[in-house]
Amino acid sequence: MPTVTPQERLAGVLARDLASVDALIRERMASEHAPRIPEVTAHLVDAGGKRLRPMLTLAAARACGYDGPHHIHLATTVEFIHTATLLHDDVVDESTQRRGRPTANLLWDNKSSVLVGDYLFARAFQLMVETGSLRVLDILADASATIAEGEVLQLTAARDLATTEDTYIRIIRGKTAALFSAATRVGAVIAGAGQAVEEALFAYGDALGIAFQIADDLLDYAGDAGIGKNRGDDLREGKLTLPVIRALALADADERAFWQRVIVRGDVADADVARAQAILAGRGALESTRETALVWAARARDALAAVPAGELRDILSDLAAHVVSRLN
Amino acid sequence: MPTVTPQERLAGVLARDLASVDALIRERMASEHAPRIPEVTAHLVDAGGKRLRPMLTLAAARACGYDGPHHIHLATTVEFIHTATLLHDDVVDESTQRRGRPTANLLWDNKSSVLVGDYLFARAFQLMVETGSLRVLDILADASATIAEGEVLQLTAARDLATTEDTYIRIIRGKTAALFSAATRVGAVIAGAGQAVEEALFAYGDALGIAFQIADDLLDYAGDAGIGKNRGDDLREGKLTLPVIRALALADADERAFWQRVIVRGDVADADVARAQAILAGRGALESTRETALVWAARARDALAAVPAGELRDILSDLAAHVVSRLN
Repeated sequence: MPTVTPQERLAGVLARDLASVDALIRERMASEHAPRIPEVTAHLVDAGGKRLRPMLTLAAARACGYDGPHHIHLATTVEFIHTATLLHDDVVDESTQRRGRPTANLLWDNKSSVLVGDYLFARAFQLMVETGSLRVLDILADASATIAEGEVLQLTAARDLATTEDTYIRIIRGKTAALFSAATRVGAVIAGAGQAVEEALFAYGDALGIAFQIADDLLDYAGDAGIGKNRGDDLREGKLTLPVIRALALADADERAFWQRVIVRGDVADADVARAQAILAGRGALESTRETALVWAARARDALAAVPAGELRDILSDLAAHVVSRLN
Repeated sequence: MPTVTPQERLAGVLARDLASVDALIRERMASEHAPRIPEVTAHLVDAGGKRLRPMLTLAAARACGYDGPHHIHLATTVEFIHTATLLHDDVVDESTQRRGRPTANLLWDNKSSVLVGDYLFARAFQLMVETGSLRVLDILADASATIAEGEVLQLTAARDLATTEDTYIRIIRGKTAALFSAATRVGAVIAGAGQAVEEALFAYGDALGIAFQIADDLLDYAGDAGIGKNRGDDLREGKLTLPVIRALALADADERAFWQRVIVRGDVADADVARAQAILAGRGALESTRETALVWAARARDALAAVPAGELRDILSDLAAHVVSRLN
């Protein structure tokens, strides 16, 4: 019998809320006059996204005892911001595949991806306005700026072997964790939870997002080629992720020449992905990166101590362990 | 002696406010960790944009007697949204020149233009939150959605000879007038002007923006090659603007074949711009488009009747005449 994952358990407990979120997504991605907008959006929204980020908002709000209607708006907001960043990321990364399907920029064009992303971002802010909460707007406007800043930082740090671990954490905190932590925080805010609970849920989302992204970056070198993203994508794009940063610190002259050629000059042959994996393993960088991901997952679990006890808190705790369980 | 334009008179009357807006633009376009962001933004902001849209917000607020600090935030918001859309437009249109300089997508890359645009959009929402006015957020979130919708509609209507005048007005109301009318409206809102004044300033901005864009589209065929945009750009991009829509309605078989070749098939030789101009002139489409621009300018002036009388109202009235004076 297949194991039920924490995400599946969350989806079960939050089934009614998730159905409301899906209905609101459909309603608000519509455009009376520009049918291209729902076409492009549906391509991505229907492609089996796991709705992880909106579930974080719903779970946070419900864990804090929220009983009103606005967590649905906020969860939809979070999914729209996420979808907008995916559309823009695929243009920026010149991607051709997302969630196992051709990307929107390939099926339509970069223009549609840019403009439909802008539309969804504007729609996200309209939904926030409907909650009537300026604090929520403040948190998600800040998160949106931090996401874009993280993406720009990733762009300018690419192919730069001098990238530090601090810069790496800043990049992934921006591009990934900022929306996780805003998603959990606004759930607490809309529920009127106190400051301690709000900060705990923020810290949980932040650490969960960082653990999630470190795991993702590790799987780019260590993962089964059949699961998730294509092995070696980061290497080909010249991204300095944690395993590479750590292996670089210990590199001998030969290894340094290798990283120089593949990452700085972008000269990557098929055999270079296996060579990179061998160097990373030899320098202990895969193992030490895995340990760092586990540390962040533990921080996420620990942060939940201040959150009201109950089934949702238990599942959120298991979720933190789960996002790094792919690394075993 | 050179004539002083209404925009120069506005800049004179609003000089202190404009200096505050410029200071706030500098402050908020900064990014501690991603210097690429202020680099790209400064390239555009320093290139001699005329600050027309932020001046509309300042003028509306001051005409309504506003004496607080928040019109500065709103004018900066409006300029950030405008700059973000310019960055994204240049990616969408594959432009190489803007305000007489190479575009950001050419100097850096499309990636930077997309992501820095996203950053400025998020910064714009942060500034609105600081005003504490949910109505302002509502108006500018709606305008942002309408802008993106207009741009997508323009994209899908390109090279389509069946485009109607209604669709054309919908496109320019989105891509141009929505930000003009939101800019004037939020000036009234922040000043606490009554609903009649707010609606009058909205109607003024809407008609001004439409007159401005019709004039711009006409100049693409009628203008001096030395002024403004490159003559024939719209033809080469397959955009169905008002003069072409009107000439198409009266086209004989030869002319229709011409439009089919250059607009639908995109097969445009150098001599075709002159041929297009000759057809437009022969069908009276340049003259009738000019008359339509004058009608919208008159609507803008008329809308000001409900706005408090004074120097600013007089200049706004002259501005409406001025945006179409290029057509004489």
